[in-house]
Amino acid sequence: MSSLTNQPVATESKKPADARERAKKLVQEIQDKICQALEEVDGKARFREDLWERKEGGGGRTRIIRDGGVFEQGGVNFSEVWGDTLPPAILVQRPEAAGHSFYATGTSMVLHPKNPYVPTVHLNYRYFEAGPIWWFAGGADLTPYYGFVEDAVHFHQVHKKACDAHHPEYYPVFKLWCDEYFYIKHRQEPRGIGGIFFDYQDDSGILYRGPDTNGRAHAYSEKVGRVSRTWEDLFAFVKTCGDAFIEAYIPIVERRKNMEYGERERNFQLYRRGRYVEFNLIYDRGTVFGLQTNGRTESILMSLPPLARWEYCYTPEKGSREAELTEFYLKERDWVNEFKS
Amino acid sequence: MSSLTNQPVATESKKPADARERAKKLVQEIQDKICQALEEVDGKARFREDLWERKEGGGGRTRIIRDGGVFEQGGVNFSEVWGDTLPPAILVQRPEAAGHSFYATGTSMVLHPKNPYVPTVHLNYRYFEAGPIWWFAGGADLTPYYGFVEDAVHFHQVHKKACDAHHPEYYPVFKLWCDEYFYIKHRQEPRGIGGIFFDYQDDSGILYRGPDTNGRAHAYSEKVGRVSRTWEDLFAFVKTCGDAFIEAYIPIVERRKNMEYGERERNFQLYRRGRYVEFNLIYDRGTVFGLQTNGRTESILMSLPPLARWEYCYTPEKGSREAELTEFYLKERDWVNEFKS
Repeated sequence: MSSLTNQPVATESKKPADARERAKKLVQEIQDKICQALEEVDGKARFREDLWERKEGGGGRTRIIRDGGVFEQGGVNFSEVWGDTLPPAILVQRPEAAGHSFYATGTSMVLHPKNPYVPTVHLNYRYFEAGPIWWFAGGADLTPYYGFVEDAVHFHQVHKKACDAHHPEYYPVFKLWCDEYFYIKHRQEPRGIGGIFFDYQDDSGILYRGPDTNGRAHAYSEKVGRVSRTWEDLFAFVKTCGDAFIEAYIPIVERRKNMEYGERERNFQLYRRGRYVEFNLIYDRGTVFGLQTNGRTESILMSLPPLARWEYCYTPEKGSREAELTEFYLKERDWVNEFKS
Repeated sequence: MSSLTNQPVATESKKPADARERAKKLVQEIQDKICQALEEVDGKARFREDLWERKEGGGGRTRIIRDGGVFEQGGVNFSEVWGDTLPPAILVQRPEAAGHSFYATGTSMVLHPKNPYVPTVHLNYRYFEAGPIWWFAGGADLTPYYGFVEDAVHFHQVHKKACDAHHPEYYPVFKLWCDEYFYIKHRQEPRGIGGIFFDYQDDSGILYRGPDTNGRAHAYSEKVGRVSRTWEDLFAFVKTCGDAFIEAYIPIVERRKNMEYGERERNFQLYRRGRYVEFNLIYDRGTVFGLQTNGRTESILMSLPPLARWEYCYTPEKGSREAELTEFYLKERDWVNEFKS
């Protein structure tokens, strides 16, 4: 575990000689373990695997599950890419990387369950190198259609435990950062009930780097000050987070997957999936960047739902379970502490 | 009719004293006439009208049709907005407007028919004023799910006739501009079979202003040289285009609306509607600008389909009608001349 300190730390970025290989193996192992756990809980469908190469350098293995017992459609992607220069949007945050070639590897996942009581979930863990610098990034967040306090608390609690094992300030900062990032501005609505999200984690001692924020995570991390971490610390942290996903999500699936539902619940799920499309195509950096830089479109857009609907001025009935989603669940809540008995 | 000339014309922008009122009335009349024609051809549903106000100045009337005989969902919007400053993306194109307040009024429409043989259609005509300058913009384009040469030729022919009545170079330039604008870059695919599209039409003599282009419309308009037009010329041109819509689209609806279809055609339509969502949320300037500048979300997103689906690596069967869409229809074609017998 690293220690919290208000002392600035050296910005020289040390990493092991086999950093790329280890990071790649880590995210591949996360992909493998998650796919296995998902097939088990699904009970019917298996992942289809596509290996692909990127003309400009790199490639990946995309795994798709469809028409399963639980999962209507979903994908768990692994990719490894390299090139001459990072995109401008990243260079603004990490100017030290300008003029250097880069390497990036990661795994990302979105699952769209069939049953409206099973929440959609997203996970992404990645590692970057560019000239003198490197960083880890990622997180996981939950998007229910019908909310359950028990599920939200569980998902957060497991991620908090994973964070706390590495640094007491990780969960508070990365929870706020997640709330800020997965926000659908034009709807003034969070995408879901959150989880954790972090970017640009390196050994500079800086816990938070904007700009996708209303400033609260930033303000909090400023208050926290600098946090001393090594490459090894962060590697271990990402491994813990990746491993935590199964414990965070699978019990929720087990609890909800056999709940009965009808056309009403299905229609609401399809409507809410429209919000997921809106977020991913308008705001999600990974999606927009991938599409604009000649990424593999089918792998990038595997995050989109199998079916979604839009309805002009839809408003759920007052006091209904559907109204409860936006009125109670899609609020920024301290899930771990608010519901302690 | 204006005359084509290679002589640069003065850039002083003259307009009538009641320019705003006349432009507003024009686009409202286009909205009215189109709604009436659509209700007639639909035969079942009526438009629901919502009047709304914009806090920062202006407002609109949104008209929505749902669950009709022909139209599954669609909207015809009128709006009028004003404010202190145009967004940066427009100021890059029109630097003369910097530091001035602006006024904009327009009508925009997207229709998603239920029957997969009836094409989706989009129309938009608008007028801007900002300090010393003003301009007209707009167009209409067709997005079939199952292609018919007859329909594509008809839609283009009617718009060509409308353009030709005002200037022989309008159709050639605005047809190319449409092909260039409604292009889904990450799919390397046009959104549909096109139509006409123009922006920044004023009395400066400049026919084309980028930047959303691969340069062919630009190159063509450079070749054409400068085209002398007054405010009155352009007002009359937009009126002709707006009036042409009914003749361009309604006969296609009549021909296709009773064609029998099954689950296969419906599934393909839903899949292709996903492309419409991708274009509108990622590339469409109006949509993205509207959402980012506190527009009325429900009116802006009325362009999204009632139901859409995504499927990883979907490929239509070789030689099928579905394959024909991308292989034959979604190519840049000179619809008016290529199929002359």
